[in-house]
Amino acid sequence: MSVGGRDRRRLDAEPLTRAAFAPFGDVIGAGEEPGRIINDGRAVRFDDLAKVEVAADGGRPTIALFRTEPATLPVSVDALERHPLGSQAFVPLGGARFLVVVAPGATPIAREIRAFVTNGRQGINFHRGIWHHPLLALDRESEFVVIDRFGPGENLEWFELGDERLVVTLESGR
Amino acid sequence: MSVGGRDRRRLDAEPLTRAAFAPFGDVIGAGEEPGRIINDGRAVRFDDLAKVEVAADGGRPTIALFRTEPATLPVSVDALERHPLGSQAFVPLGGARFLVVVAPGATPIAREIRAFVTNGRQGINFHRGIWHHPLLALDRESEFVVIDRFGPGENLEWFELGDERLVVTLESGR
Repeated sequence: MSVGGRDRRRLDAEPLTRAAFAPFGDVIGAGEEPGRIINDGRAVRFDDLAKVEVAADGGRPTIALFRTEPATLPVSVDALERHPLGSQAFVPLGGARFLVVVAPGATPIAREIRAFVTNGRQGINFHRGIWHHPLLALDRESEFVVIDRFGPGENLEWFELGDERLVVTLESGR
Repeated sequence: MSVGGRDRRRLDAEPLTRAAFAPFGDVIGAGEEPGRIINDGRAVRFDDLAKVEVAADGGRPTIALFRTEPATLPVSVDALERHPLGSQAFVPLGGARFLVVVAPGATPIAREIRAFVTNGRQGINFHRGIWHHPLLALDRESEFVVIDRFGPGENLEWFELGDERLVVTLESGR
């Protein structure tokens, strides 16, 4: 795919795992660790799956819902955003897969951008200050519960990739 | 239904609405208020749906997942619990309905217990210190994302209803 005459780099999303995603945040999923039995044996609780960090500069945790259209593959990634004052978690309510595009470090470097695809049962939590692409749901319109920061201060930064723009797809093409 | 020779009172769950549930907590659902358009028009964000209050005595917010078997109707309610140090939110990941059983005040009074049934797209947030029954999912085994408090201190109290035990069902019987 070309951008002003240049070919966009193509990045295949890799399956999301806790180990691979650890530099960027948490995977919110049941069953990777043993749970704790509660409610007289009728339920299992998987505890403390995400590092929620929202207290900087007078922030507090908040719960929101996002309803989003699905992205079409391949997805053009032209820019990334980050929230310098807080973490941000997304958990899908209807089993939809989504793409997670992230970059390490203080300034995104195109060659270091990583793309992951969830399995439909996973949520994620971006750690405070991690560069990421806005939500990219797949499959269908879907809702996500979002746990992030509410409070004063400027909590959104934006980085344009310019000539380093890329496209993200799945190796399978699905 | 009898308890030691006494009939248990039968309480029909009422449909969950924000107004009816306001004395106990928040309804986490999209679409009751207009959302805010984000992500270049591809998503709508419904903000600040729950009062997350977890900071008492050194607490911090945490995200967990519960996997629970469904309850069988009618549900016997023998006791209630509360978390004096924090709020607790439940959002179903697979569209399951659940029963929400609550009592106002500092000590539960059986006649004041209320029961609500969600519509499958609603989550709830119990405000700090509200007496409630542990999670009662309906329909099928399901997972819930839970946002509550992690930290020091005793954050669980239990109240046995004794002779005032009751059963909760749905008027429709379904």
